[in-house]
Amino acid sequence: MFQKVSIIGSGNVATQLGKALVNNGTVVTHVASKNRDHAQELANLLKADACSLDELPNQFTIICVSDDAISAVCSEIAEGIPLVYTSGSVGLEDLPSRDRIGVLYPLQTISKTGTVDMKSVPFLVESKNESFQREIYEFALVLSPSTHIVNSEQRRKIHMAAVWINNFTNHIVYQAQKITEDQQLDYRLLLPLLKETLNKLDHQSAFEAQTGPARRGDSNTIEKHLNAQSGTARELYELLTKSINETYNDEEL
Amino acid sequence: MFQKVSIIGSGNVATQLGKALVNNGTVVTHVASKNRDHAQELANLLKADACSLDELPNQFTIICVSDDAISAVCSEIAEGIPLVYTSGSVGLEDLPSRDRIGVLYPLQTISKTGTVDMKSVPFLVESKNESFQREIYEFALVLSPSTHIVNSEQRRKIHMAAVWINNFTNHIVYQAQKITEDQQLDYRLLLPLLKETLNKLDHQSAFEAQTGPARRGDSNTIEKHLNAQSGTARELYELLTKSINETYNDEEL
Repeated sequence: MFQKVSIIGSGNVATQLGKALVNNGTVVTHVASKNRDHAQELANLLKADACSLDELPNQFTIICVSDDAISAVCSEIAEGIPLVYTSGSVGLEDLPSRDRIGVLYPLQTISKTGTVDMKSVPFLVESKNESFQREIYEFALVLSPSTHIVNSEQRRKIHMAAVWINNFTNHIVYQAQKITEDQQLDYRLLLPLLKETLNKLDHQSAFEAQTGPARRGDSNTIEKHLNAQSGTARELYELLTKSINETYNDEEL
Repeated sequence: MFQKVSIIGSGNVATQLGKALVNNGTVVTHVASKNRDHAQELANLLKADACSLDELPNQFTIICVSDDAISAVCSEIAEGIPLVYTSGSVGLEDLPSRDRIGVLYPLQTISKTGTVDMKSVPFLVESKNESFQREIYEFALVLSPSTHIVNSEQRRKIHMAAVWINNFTNHIVYQAQKITEDQQLDYRLLLPLLKETLNKLDHQSAFEAQTGPARRGDSNTIEKHLNAQSGTARELYELLTKSINETYNDEEL
């Protein structure tokens, strides 16, 4: 596969992908970034050279910049250079067309620090150029056995599902933390319950696993909980309860 | 502590608490339940006798019945018998008053089958009779080192937080599963992300851990996601986004 690659960007994904590649024996030769200091920092970490976009060599190049910047970055890179980008929501049709351009999307929340176990990260890949798509696929497979070809539409939907799974569950947990804090209670009391909720989902669908007052239609408890909350939290409690009700009423029809 | 106890009920909590007690060397001598066959079944499992409420001996008795039934059960039990019940939301003031009555609330989602590791389950205990409260506390401590005295108000609030942590996160995951199903994609692609979301909460508050389009105010992505959804799911996406916005706007004030 690609023995030498370049990375554009110096943020969370650039850093963690770069580290994983180097650990896997791939040589990262160049790091380009808007901010030359950041590029240099990551280049040092990966034993690569920092460079500007027009100095990139003609080799496999991974764009790890924010969604809004991908299109502009693509336009600045010499036509012959094979490019992949790491976004969940930017479609191939959103970018200037070129022969070898594709997607290498790691479906994970990635922080700059710590070590991400890339082997457990699903990679979603795509290109309109079939032979390039195969090359990206094999490249990703070296990073993770969970590599999948999905089209732009599917990737966008998975990205939306990821917003639910990551951003929204996190905010729900925030609401629970707020309740315990208001009571001067230790939030960690709830951690075993949170872990068990998740463990169940390893062998049961969320549809089957649902319990609680909303599922049981226990209007007494729901009423008490609504009265104990206010503002958007109360609205959310109400709408989540309605949504659970609807989910199981639909079943009974 | 109490070497011999009775259990009222034969459902999930009765079964798992009973098993944990027997494993800890406590002798469960009697099991009473509305349904005599179910009582007999659990009694067999615990090497106890099935009996009716008026046959219960004068010893520590754990009521594991549904919230709605606790009050009626209490009224039927001879005054001298020390009672605890396992509910998160029923307050002591909701029950007929008696000398030794208290709460032994396991803060966990408990299924009938499988084995619950009670040592990791937080127990919340309470009684208006201080010496009885101390006895319940010591009893619970044998089951789990995470035993805490909290008042009825705090317990009700924790129970409400538990609805968020368990029932609502589960429903959020259901929404994500529905999106992947609609796309004929394997939901398990999202499991590493869900696990990582949770892992972060071991060493970071949900407030700090929040990421995503709502936190960034990425109205472009939010707009696209809203257009791709309908009905209550769309309403939920919108309200969760609003709630995250408010959470971080408030911070900036």
